[in-house]
Amino acid sequence: MISKNKARFIISLQKKKFREEEGLFVIEGDKLVREFLAAKVSIRTLIAKREFISSLPPFMKECIDETEDATYEELKQISTLKTPHNALALVPVPERKMIPEELLDNICVALDFVQDPGNLGTIIRAAAWFGIRNIVCSPDCVDVYNPKVVQATMGAILHVNVYYSDLKKFMVIAIGKNIPVFGTVLDGESIYLQKLGNKGIILLGNESRGISDELLPFITDKIMIPGARRAMPGIESLNVSMAASVIFSEFLRQTDSLSD
Amino acid sequence: MISKNKARFIISLQKKKFREEEGLFVIEGDKLVREFLAAKVSIRTLIAKREFISSLPPFMKECIDETEDATYEELKQISTLKTPHNALALVPVPERKMIPEELLDNICVALDFVQDPGNLGTIIRAAAWFGIRNIVCSPDCVDVYNPKVVQATMGAILHVNVYYSDLKKFMVIAIGKNIPVFGTVLDGESIYLQKLGNKGIILLGNESRGISDELLPFITDKIMIPGARRAMPGIESLNVSMAASVIFSEFLRQTDSLSD
Repeated sequence: MISKNKARFIISLQKKKFREEEGLFVIEGDKLVREFLAAKVSIRTLIAKREFISSLPPFMKECIDETEDATYEELKQISTLKTPHNALALVPVPERKMIPEELLDNICVALDFVQDPGNLGTIIRAAAWFGIRNIVCSPDCVDVYNPKVVQATMGAILHVNVYYSDLKKFMVIAIGKNIPVFGTVLDGESIYLQKLGNKGIILLGNESRGISDELLPFITDKIMIPGARRAMPGIESLNVSMAASVIFSEFLRQTDSLSD
Repeated sequence: MISKNKARFIISLQKKKFREEEGLFVIEGDKLVREFLAAKVSIRTLIAKREFISSLPPFMKECIDETEDATYEELKQISTLKTPHNALALVPVPERKMIPEELLDNICVALDFVQDPGNLGTIIRAAAWFGIRNIVCSPDCVDVYNPKVVQATMGAILHVNVYYSDLKKFMVIAIGKNIPVFGTVLDGESIYLQKLGNKGIILLGNESRGISDELLPFITDKIMIPGARRAMPGIESLNVSMAASVIFSEFLRQTDSLSD
């Protein structure tokens, strides 16, 4: 039985302001909750059907501070989904200190004003698939703990670190260390022909405006995804998450031993 | 001023049954309507703000059978979107006869039970970008004229032919002509290493179940998208539209002159 106050508290976490105040975010779904527990992430509160709770192995239960059983109707009330799952959990926002120099030892992604939750979620999922562990978002990107982002990552949020930081400052550090900044622009070199390496920033821009003017000068390697653009003049662009998938894939293909 | 009957008629086209009965589907948005008109697609009814209608050049107006001006409130009433655009149009469903032999002269895509409108729309968009002109859907796929699919294609629906047909029969024809069928399966060969050509069917499966058992035997070339799967065991898969983008890109990369 969930109290009205508790229900209100959980619903309030749909808003960034309250997530930040409380340091908590919400995950939904049997599978997602199990994945978090399997990864030994500590969960503040688990709200779930009784059957779900009793099905958890002891090592998972140990990761949970507080458990409340709930009915379908109660879960529906606090869910962001039309059809609620059997479980929902409140998870402490992990504290992560971004160390730019460490990120720059590998391929990382910088997102400039990506606003759509589905796009951010999909980009995180693609990054995890292709082995990219760090994403730096400009402060005006959608919040990674937005429920729609969390759901769209399908658990990949567990494997990718997402930071919010001033991209200009980050680029300055990269340039100072001679790390390439790859940016997709219309007059870029085909990603199939461009030499891609094991280090660098893949800079992706806003859904409709692309990369912002103040960041364009930091691009050291202009890239583009070849398409049938000339053959089909109506085709405008790939969306940013599709472009991300293709670019990440091409990086993986070109960089040696991972590609088998 | 839109009559109540007209409004009801337009709203009814959100359902497949009525689209099929009437042979009409709905497009929304200033940009999309303009793209259809620029491509000289004939439009049965244009419902739009007066300013939008008067802004159309004469050659576009010639493609429209019937025009009605509407207020924001009226557009809102018939729109599937939270925030309606300035224009909405009813477009006759094009009659397309599928000639399997013609499709098999190029790369084409076969979709097995793809249910999510966003996924189908995104796959159409990716196909258009990478120059793939034909998609064959199993009859249980989501309808291409579903408003969410149409919107997700961002106009690419103008450039890609989408057919609904028995995939088994289509595969039999392909095999008879020695055309390869590429299917993504877990034990497939890396797409980076697999030799991809100018002809073939790219078979993509359902969002959660993958390619159905009855189609698996037709796959001549098992492929997979390499990922960091082993490093991050929690990562389940790319979704079908991301996978499609990556595979289409790799086909384009490998097949000669297009890749510059």
